[in-house]
Amino acid sequence: MHTDVLILRALRAGGVNGASGALLAKELGVSRAAVWNRIEELRRFGYDIEASPHAGYVLRASPDVLHGEDLLARLGPVRSIGRDIRVFAETTSTNDVVEKLARDGVAEGIVVFAESQTKGRGRLGRTWLSPAGQGLWCSVLLRPRLAPQAATQLTVITAVAVARAIEKHTGLRPGIKWPNDIVFGDRKAAGILLELGAELDHIRHVILGIGLDVNLRSADLPEELRDVVTSLSEQAGEPIDRPGLATALIQELDTVYTRFLAGDFHELSDEWMRRCVTLGRRVTLHVGDRIVAGRAEALDDEGALLLRTEHGRLERVVGGDVILEK
Amino acid sequence: MHTDVLILRALRAGGVNGASGALLAKELGVSRAAVWNRIEELRRFGYDIEASPHAGYVLRASPDVLHGEDLLARLGPVRSIGRDIRVFAETTSTNDVVEKLARDGVAEGIVVFAESQTKGRGRLGRTWLSPAGQGLWCSVLLRPRLAPQAATQLTVITAVAVARAIEKHTGLRPGIKWPNDIVFGDRKAAGILLELGAELDHIRHVILGIGLDVNLRSADLPEELRDVVTSLSEQAGEPIDRPGLATALIQELDTVYTRFLAGDFHELSDEWMRRCVTLGRRVTLHVGDRIVAGRAEALDDEGALLLRTEHGRLERVVGGDVILEK
Repeated sequence: MHTDVLILRALRAGGVNGASGALLAKELGVSRAAVWNRIEELRRFGYDIEASPHAGYVLRASPDVLHGEDLLARLGPVRSIGRDIRVFAETTSTNDVVEKLARDGVAEGIVVFAESQTKGRGRLGRTWLSPAGQGLWCSVLLRPRLAPQAATQLTVITAVAVARAIEKHTGLRPGIKWPNDIVFGDRKAAGILLELGAELDHIRHVILGIGLDVNLRSADLPEELRDVVTSLSEQAGEPIDRPGLATALIQELDTVYTRFLAGDFHELSDEWMRRCVTLGRRVTLHVGDRIVAGRAEALDDEGALLLRTEHGRLERVVGGDVILEK
Repeated sequence: MHTDVLILRALRAGGVNGASGALLAKELGVSRAAVWNRIEELRRFGYDIEASPHAGYVLRASPDVLHGEDLLARLGPVRSIGRDIRVFAETTSTNDVVEKLARDGVAEGIVVFAESQTKGRGRLGRTWLSPAGQGLWCSVLLRPRLAPQAATQLTVITAVAVARAIEKHTGLRPGIKWPNDIVFGDRKAAGILLELGAELDHIRHVILGIGLDVNLRSADLPEELRDVVTSLSEQAGEPIDRPGLATALIQELDTVYTRFLAGDFHELSDEWMRRCVTLGRRVTLHVGDRIVAGRAEALDDEGALLLRTEHGRLERVVGGDVILEK
């Protein structure tokens, strides 16, 4: 493991008592001068690290930047998601980066963040606004042994993980709008874009793209988006610490994915339904060229929405655009 | 259109009467010397072209090599498949090439051939033997507006096109073994590998990979494959002209795909069933870790196999390995 991960983990574990430079050097098997060099590097990165003759090194404050080694240091042990984390200052889209990794045969669980995306993607080929430092724009590579039809289940469990992470880290209570929006009232704070590479009967890889509007400033948004987009900081009334939220997000993703692989989809799907703002309401859905209207009744075993139409028939819908009627 | 396409088309149209160099030059808007240069180039490529002062140029024989311009020249008008054709002497896998084209935003209908593949792929990560000049190893890019679940239908119509092309070009009557093998008796002569890139509710692109053992020599096969693999030349008792078969294949693929997009899946699916050697027989299926046995009864609307198990239940199977019981 990279030296920075171990140093940051020790500093966080030490808290106000700090971590001794001599002990760090011994644990890492490097010289005290080498430890000092890494500390200097971390300071340049924005970490406020105090050095005292008695306490050793004390971490006073962390910058609001995403740093792969620090995210690994903050994370508890994970089963698969978060085994490896990479952060880019800027990419076209983190889904693009992960798709390349997938084709190169990288194992599942790697998480890629970008501080900003130049071609962030939403569903159905839409643009996803991803300004630098204002959100969490990330993608996860998974390789579940599933039929392509079961991929819908992954959207369900991802939405649960995103909602849980927001709740744990901020105390806010977001809703889930089917199929994959995280909302506050009628305004969207996060979206999930699932892309898959598959053969007929099995998935090769799944890319979970997550876009989370953390400290997005309403004033920076195009006029037409202000009524439909919100951010966690707007909801909380204060800025949100992104690295902390990123850590919570990875941890929750790892937890739900592990449960899912163990066969606990129904439990997660129940939680999804409790958090969902779509169920029980009349909705209008655009599925390709078709329009379906009815009352959203439930989620089925594969994560599809069951809609009771006006004629009393139950329609099963896998994707599309939902308009919630008031 | 490339000059070679127009020259070869004129030579083929002229037959034994040939095509006049002067007329060709006029039609192409180039000098007679330029036409002569292209003819020389085609000769180097293996085309036996006779030049006579009276008849002009006469095409006496074509080489058994795949030449993109010649395939375009041989093809009649197409709706989508075969609008563009590229031939590589060697690639890792033609599916890889088409996947790159797909990501670059190339329109549907392009067909990529390789004389040999160094990493030819079969289903479920298996190797597909693709020795130089002995088969047709090709991939087609499609972008149908379909849900990922409907991709199975494309395997069905592709198998029909491959069977039709073989029949038209060789007179042989191949069978179809579910889900996607072209067989003679118990031995396989062609396989189809469908790969897809998708979002949850719609396909981004489909890659139809087709491997056709045309003039594969049994002696060149590994011992363990000789009982399960055959080739068209072995079945016909004579070598098969590959460019002619390639042309027939593209034409049939374009025809079935056009019919499919027009909503005629059921008609194609009926033809599939007539050609199928799996239906009506007892089969054992390996689907991942699961084994399902029963009598293959029919194909459903999405191209899945309906299996009547021993307990009388109808099981729906999307993929897997089929063992036909004797």
